[in-house]
Amino acid sequence: MSINVTVWNECRHEKEDEIVRQIYPETIGGCIVEGLKPYDFNVTLKTLDDDQQGLTKELLDNTDVLVWWGHRYHGEVADERVDYIQQRVLDGMGLVVLHSGHHAKIFKRLMGTSCNLAWREADDGERERLWVIQPSHPIAAGIPPYLELPKSEMYGEPFDIPEPDELVFTSWYQGGEVLRSGCCFKRGRGKIFFFGPGHETFPIYRDEHIMRVIANGIAYVNQAHTDGWCLQNWGRPEPAENAAPRQTKFKKPRRRSKPG
Amino acid sequence: MSINVTVWNECRHEKEDEIVRQIYPETIGGCIVEGLKPYDFNVTLKTLDDDQQGLTKELLDNTDVLVWWGHRYHGEVADERVDYIQQRVLDGMGLVVLHSGHHAKIFKRLMGTSCNLAWREADDGERERLWVIQPSHPIAAGIPPYLELPKSEMYGEPFDIPEPDELVFTSWYQGGEVLRSGCCFKRGRGKIFFFGPGHETFPIYRDEHIMRVIANGIAYVNQAHTDGWCLQNWGRPEPAENAAPRQTKFKKPRRRSKPG
Amino acid sequence: MSINVTVWNECRHEKEDEIVRQIYPETIGGCIVEGLKPYDFNVTLKTLDDDQQGLTKELLDNTDVLVWWGHRYHGEVADERVDYIQQRVLDGMGLVVLHSGHHAKIFKRLMGTSCNLAWREADDGERERLWVIQPSHPIAAGIPPYLELPKSEMYGEPFDIPEPDELVFTSWYQGGEVLRSGCCFKRGRGKIFFFGPGHETFPIYRDEHIMRVIANGIAYVNQAHTDGWCLQNWGRPEPAENAAPRQTKFKKPRRRSKPG
Amino acid sequence: MSINVTVWNECRHEKEDEIVRQIYPETIGGCIVEGLKPYDFNVTLKTLDDDQQGLTKELLDNTDVLVWWGHRYHGEVADERVDYIQQRVLDGMGLVVLHSGHHAKIFKRLMGTSCNLAWREADDGERERLWVIQPSHPIAAGIPPYLELPKSEMYGEPFDIPEPDELVFTSWYQGGEVLRSGCCFKRGRGKIFFFGPGHETFPIYRDEHIMRVIANGIAYVNQAHTDGWCLQNWGRPEPAENAAPRQTKFKKPRRRSKPG
Repeated sequence: MSINVTVWNECRHEKEDEIVRQIYPETIGGCIVEGLKPYDFNVTLKTLDDDQQGLTKELLDNTDVLVWWGHRYHGEVADERVDYIQQRVLDGMGLVVLHSGHHAKIFKRLMGTSCNLAWREADDGERERLWVIQPSHPIAAGIPPYLELPKSEMYGEPFDIPEPDELVFTSWYQGGEVLRSGCCFKRGRGKIFFFGPGHETFPIYRDEHIMRVIANGIAYVNQAHTDGWCLQNWGRPEPAENAAPRQTKFKKPRRRSKPG
Repeated sequence: MSINVTVWNECRHEKEDEIVRQIYPETIGGCIVEGLKPYDFNVTLKTLDDDQQGLTKELLDNTDVLVWWGHRYHGEVADERVDYIQQRVLDGMGLVVLHSGHHAKIFKRLMGTSCNLAWREADDGERERLWVIQPSHPIAAGIPPYLELPKSEMYGEPFDIPEPDELVFTSWYQGGEVLRSGCCFKRGRGKIFFFGPGHETFPIYRDEHIMRVIANGIAYVNQAHTDGWCLQNWGRPEPAENAAPRQTKFKKPRRRSKPG
Repeated sequence: MSINVTVWNECRHEKEDEIVRQIYPETIGGCIVEGLKPYDFNVTLKTLDDDQQGLTKELLDNTDVLVWWGHRYHGEVADERVDYIQQRVLDGMGLVVLHSGHHAKIFKRLMGTSCNLAWREADDGERERLWVIQPSHPIAAGIPPYLELPKSEMYGEPFDIPEPDELVFTSWYQGGEVLRSGCCFKRGRGKIFFFGPGHETFPIYRDEHIMRVIANGIAYVNQAHTDGWCLQNWGRPEPAENAAPRQTKFKKPRRRSKPG
Repeated sequence: MSINVTVWNECRHEKEDEIVRQIYPETIGGCIVEGLKPYDFNVTLKTLDDDQQGLTKELLDNTDVLVWWGHRYHGEVADERVDYIQQRVLDGMGLVVLHSGHHAKIFKRLMGTSCNLAWREADDGERERLWVIQPSHPIAAGIPPYLELPKSEMYGEPFDIPEPDELVFTSWYQGGEVLRSGCCFKRGRGKIFFFGPGHETFPIYRDEHIMRVIANGIAYVNQAHTDGWCLQNWGRPEPAENAAPRQTKFKKPRRRSKPG
């Protein structure tokens, strides 16, 4: 069954900056959707200016993997939407965070850190080379030992994230910096893949290898199954061991729990 | 130099529940402060009902390690205080979260997950045995292969936390459950130690080994030094490599940065 | 395409111990092969007493995932075979290590530690309960929140292994101990899954859930793809950056390298 | 009490290569010993050509932290000495592995992998810049956000090691490569710190910051205490729970165990 992917793109640079319009006349989100066509996903494109910021409960409930590109207007995304996206990730929805999405509310929420990093937007960009740290990782399928981007924005260490559960890519920059640029995290039942490349003024999402990484990332963070416990608060007044003490005398307020 | 420790205790059970008053006439926080006396810390005790919820900016700025016990009134802790505690942890303040503090706003904030777990408050408690998983870890100094608590509240798996950076203790319960009950995490420059035991109706903080673990935990999460970069947003218009492209043409809004 | 699984079973208990013959008349390996039938694997069964200890280079070269059960005669497995199995794992072959295989040469080789643990073989066994720590992990597909084994051998902490890359199960024992009983590791291009249950005198491999875990483990450690660099020694006299210094003046002895 | 540090240096380049003699007339090991003088260690220097390869049981038994530099003659180090060093690490001895020591038998033994990496010895070296990934880590005390080495040998990814327990440094190279160049691992009761810089033809160990990192690394991998269980095979015929089944009927061969 095809994975339901929602590509969320802030889509304001495309309205405000002539240079971004030239690079991505179809918008960044449109380019990502186009680049995912060779893969068997069921893709929906949404933006910040759509109804309910493009993040309705109904859409999120039907999204297996959410791909996030945002930059200048992170602050506009309503907190209650961030709350719900977080809940969906904890319930198992996959999340792929691209480039400047490192400062998106939802990413900072799931990391618990500032997600700050070093950065430089050189006038005409600079070379970035992404090295594969784990060549047999599913996200590295079809990828040579390194990818080279002729023009990129520098994102450098220290990158204020928790130690990743898996480090798949590390980037080298012409200006002398490095970045853990492909990182996997687990939160609740959900998986998250952060991928560094994608500045709005360089046509990075037209690179087939970059799109392959994103497609691999989508497949990787998609929840493998929905079995087992849902990580809710789990009152267990009856112990697993029959002979063990029980909780009978007083009752706490019921909280929602559900059998696995 | 002595570590400045602030013990924060919700301290409402002690006012509301006769049984808790009997177990901890000096309050839970008071018992913890007493138990830390053999160690060379500079300890301050604060509670939810103190001025500014016992969490003034000045106090937090002078706190090296914050110890947190809360339970029934997590929701009352003001969000702006949680914001500031989080910032202090990211800046290097250590945090020791005890027992029902797993559901404290600050812990959930730093984890990015629900921090739900299974639980049972058996009528007269049940046996818990904490196994040391890493015997040479600094937090296990002076601790035998396992600790036994005759009466405890069950906290069980699945515990919805990110995979810990270090797993130091795992608990066995009479009722048949298990818990990763001693877990270390890094967030920003700060370290966090979660330690499971400590239900309000059992005199667990009178156990010398338990207090030794907490004292070890305080020493472990205390920031080793304040050198290096402070993990702020770091604009670097000048590359480390002299010959590399610069950022000159346009200026982004200045963000605060500071040399290492 | 079906995964080529080789189930390797020491198969000496079955010859030496009447009680084991009664429990597993078809041998432990035979029972595992039978239990894997519902899954779409291409399974081969080998034992220590087979030609070349059942571990020919040809077989290993055609094995995607090796399942290992050994106990009393770990020492008989020839070191050169262990060398080759290790190389195959580093090259991407998956490895599932069962129960007393924790002391197999190949597991200790890949871990770098003693792999010691606590143990007790109670006269008629004791209850073990395996809790799922990560319910949405692929290995937990189809598995309820916990599995219960009425009769098991106790394997307990401290288990001298490197911190697992992923902890999927933790066991509770009737006698009061705990174990990290389902652990994933990556070594080179290969993945390893250690799974605790399976003492020779209890019919544990007749339990459908246990076999489901093993089948899930096989699928999980199977190499996702063979693309990218093979983790060989990689002389790079020509830098990735054209303008950077080269290695020309003297030549080191050539070592085997291969493009990704 | 002062940490007993043994600096082990292969010390053959110094005899065979005129250029190395010019760079390190006092030998590499001698330079490291000199560079450690400002720190309060009790340092012993040993080499491959010393009696018993400089690795007597008595010395190792009295070594808290072993610092290892080897390169061309890894193969000469006797396997039984490697066995004993491994045992000492598992028992709690710290190990600092420098530069080409990545291919030392003892490092490969403890990692379980090939420890291969990419490499280039540019004719007159090339620039390396080491970025601090975790600025508040004890090993980064006194270290600015990055260190710059004007002439270094390139060691690049993919580096075939298990995912480090802590990643402290990542290196950038002039030629376009990157490396996880400061990595911590735990094995048994012991800690290991791998640190990349130190090619024999560049005076890297005369750099004060480099020596500070090594000194910090020594302090960090030094065992915090010797309490608790020693990770031996632990037969427990008597369960922790009194009412639980015992092991009485038959006896396994006794294996050495020791109370915590």
